[in-house]
Amino acid sequence: MDANYNSLAGRSLGRLAGLSDGVFSVAMTLLVLDLTVPAAHEIGNADQLRIALAALAPKLISYMMSFLTLGIFWNGQQVQLENLTEGDRHLSWINLAFLFAVTLVPFSTGLLAAFIDERLALLIYWANILLLGLLLLASWSYAMRTGLVDPKIDAPRCRAILRRFVVAQCLYALGAALCVIDTYVSIGWIVLLQLNYAVAPPVKWLRNL
Amino acid sequence: MDANYNSLAGRSLGRLAGLSDGVFSVAMTLLVLDLTVPAAHEIGNADQLRIALAALAPKLISYMMSFLTLGIFWNGQQVQLENLTEGDRHLSWINLAFLFAVTLVPFSTGLLAAFIDERLALLIYWANILLLGLLLLASWSYAMRTGLVDPKIDAPRCRAILRRFVVAQCLYALGAALCVIDTYVSIGWIVLLQLNYAVAPPVKWLRNL
Amino acid sequence: MDANYNSLAGRSLGRLAGLSDGVFSVAMTLLVLDLTVPAAHEIGNADQLRIALAALAPKLISYMMSFLTLGIFWNGQQVQLENLTEGDRHLSWINLAFLFAVTLVPFSTGLLAAFIDERLALLIYWANILLLGLLLLASWSYAMRTGLVDPKIDAPRCRAILRRFVVAQCLYALGAALCVIDTYVSIGWIVLLQLNYAVAPPVKWLRNL
Amino acid sequence: MDANYNSLAGRSLGRLAGLSDGVFSVAMTLLVLDLTVPAAHEIGNADQLRIALAALAPKLISYMMSFLTLGIFWNGQQVQLENLTEGDRHLSWINLAFLFAVTLVPFSTGLLAAFIDERLALLIYWANILLLGLLLLASWSYAMRTGLVDPKIDAPRCRAILRRFVVAQCLYALGAALCVIDTYVSIGWIVLLQLNYAVAPPVKWLRNL
Repeated sequence: MDANYNSLAGRSLGRLAGLSDGVFSVAMTLLVLDLTVPAAHEIGNADQLRIALAALAPKLISYMMSFLTLGIFWNGQQVQLENLTEGDRHLSWINLAFLFAVTLVPFSTGLLAAFIDERLALLIYWANILLLGLLLLASWSYAMRTGLVDPKIDAPRCRAILRRFVVAQCLYALGAALCVIDTYVSIGWIVLLQLNYAVAPPVKWLRNL
Repeated sequence: MDANYNSLAGRSLGRLAGLSDGVFSVAMTLLVLDLTVPAAHEIGNADQLRIALAALAPKLISYMMSFLTLGIFWNGQQVQLENLTEGDRHLSWINLAFLFAVTLVPFSTGLLAAFIDERLALLIYWANILLLGLLLLASWSYAMRTGLVDPKIDAPRCRAILRRFVVAQCLYALGAALCVIDTYVSIGWIVLLQLNYAVAPPVKWLRNL
Repeated sequence: MDANYNSLAGRSLGRLAGLSDGVFSVAMTLLVLDLTVPAAHEIGNADQLRIALAALAPKLISYMMSFLTLGIFWNGQQVQLENLTEGDRHLSWINLAFLFAVTLVPFSTGLLAAFIDERLALLIYWANILLLGLLLLASWSYAMRTGLVDPKIDAPRCRAILRRFVVAQCLYALGAALCVIDTYVSIGWIVLLQLNYAVAPPVKWLRNL
Repeated sequence: MDANYNSLAGRSLGRLAGLSDGVFSVAMTLLVLDLTVPAAHEIGNADQLRIALAALAPKLISYMMSFLTLGIFWNGQQVQLENLTEGDRHLSWINLAFLFAVTLVPFSTGLLAAFIDERLALLIYWANILLLGLLLLASWSYAMRTGLVDPKIDAPRCRAILRRFVVAQCLYALGAALCVIDTYVSIGWIVLLQLNYAVAPPVKWLRNL
């Protein structure tokens, strides 16, 4: 038996799940802070209220986009953690790096919403999604390599999880590349892709992308 | 066995419960940020302090209303999740949409408190409650349809849960419709209804609404 | 079997514990937001930094007081929930009201720190502690009355828990009453009392207060 | 049987873990609030956006440092709690004090980032790390002394955990002492040390520091 600290660290998947749920909760609700109630003394009548609320629409949309992205990656991480038998210290740190990238989503989404026709904003947003994907991929391939995956999950299932990350990231990268045409085309592609992941439509090839 | 990603996703009810508790915690405490301590240098004596604190009363009341609404829907979601045997990816996404609506409650309540005699504010507040109810209803009827409900929960209990959502939403809708008379009547009706759900008074027909 | 909604609600002590931990986490960290790093452009040298940091001391102390109070009541609620076999809807709502009072602690502590020689601020602070105590008391006596308490907890233990709440609240009330002499005396008494509960010193009569 | 309150308090390691995950989640995400999206009306073109984003780099780095420190101590506490059979009230309070120190990390890191060549800022940052280490040490040695440690954890493992805290704290102290040369040398040393703990490189003596 190896009596050192590292061999004891990071084994509790329950604690990792608990911390992840906490960090996701905070990240998911961060952009709702931007939805501020209009100041009563600046609003004289119903029309002004309607205008003030309509002005909040872009913030609401960027909040929805951020929530959607986080929901997809929360599901992605959950699938992984559910199918492991135990953790270890390296897995914990890969997941901590993943959680760090998670907390940047509200920022990168807000940046994209504010500078919707700047390629730099789009590339930062995409880099954030890429980072999330790479870290989940790293986490899963590390778990497969070191035998942390539940033996009930056979090879085809392991590959199905792996394949999902790779295909999704290729489609996101394609979306980002579309910015050479126009940033709106890029954003449109990415949002449709994410809605597809959320809704999982009854069309088989779409659902299994 | 279907070796694709979607068949593996969203099975952990524990993770969904953990994320929900996190999101509810943040949403429930959001409006307490509006209760700011009066600035010491603006307060000369005990009377001025009393006046400054009294001025916080509307914010405290809207905080209580938001907490009450969230408490009701937290209970509603908890009843559902407790009585399922497992989850799946669609159930997760219905519940993520529900959590999104949860995070809007502090905003819609704050809006109502600031514009208490504007019908638009009342309708937005009601639309938020309606959305919460519809998503819980969607979640439960999806679970019933796909056999995720714990077999120990017999048909009468399933229907009792369903019935609660439908009756509650009809009563909320009636409350909202009362705004053709006056928004204060609407708000009064909705608050009494919510207090009734929280307290569950010993009068049977009231308790079982 | 009673097939209504209320008989199904609020049974999960796990969810109640999860929500409570979330709400306590947010409430405990709320006052740390007041500890803001001094603006670099306003600080010219090491002495000015020392002065700026010293000026944060009162905020740090009120943060510690708030954390201490919340720690005591977190322990109090934990003892209860650990010793129940299941929950019900009324227990949930008593605990939701308790959590509402929990989120007010940062406000009432901040108010006391800002207006340390105003009796009104002291009374509001004390009212908050009293409310927390009364709700925990209500929760425990409700659980005892309705048979939710774990049968392994015998009558002397039940009474020990009850006794603790009653004695603590009497001592807090005495502390508040001391404000007829001076608010500083009151605050000193309350802080010593709370430190005693946190440290549980090896002097038996102090520890078992 | 000792029928007093203190003998019943603090036994639930699950609640302690839940509260800790919540507090760590909030503390880890606190500094992300400083990453604010540049105001759209102040940015005229892509170059100005690049400059505005580059200006956020120091805040991003201090956020990463804070996240890294918190990740290390989250792992440290997790190793402890995983290897205990049960808790008690003193253990709870040592861990509550630890959580208090956890919530100060964003402040002390932000202070260091803002005053990177002030020794006082460095010493406060180090004092925070020292406090975290001492409290974890207190928690573990208390658990060893009172028999709360899982009997499966033999003496060499117990000592491995103890040794880790002591060695790490000596290396941090050495880092802090380097500020007599220059604060940049100190910070460099501490950051390298933390990266080493996070990455656990395949060089054995480095990994087992």
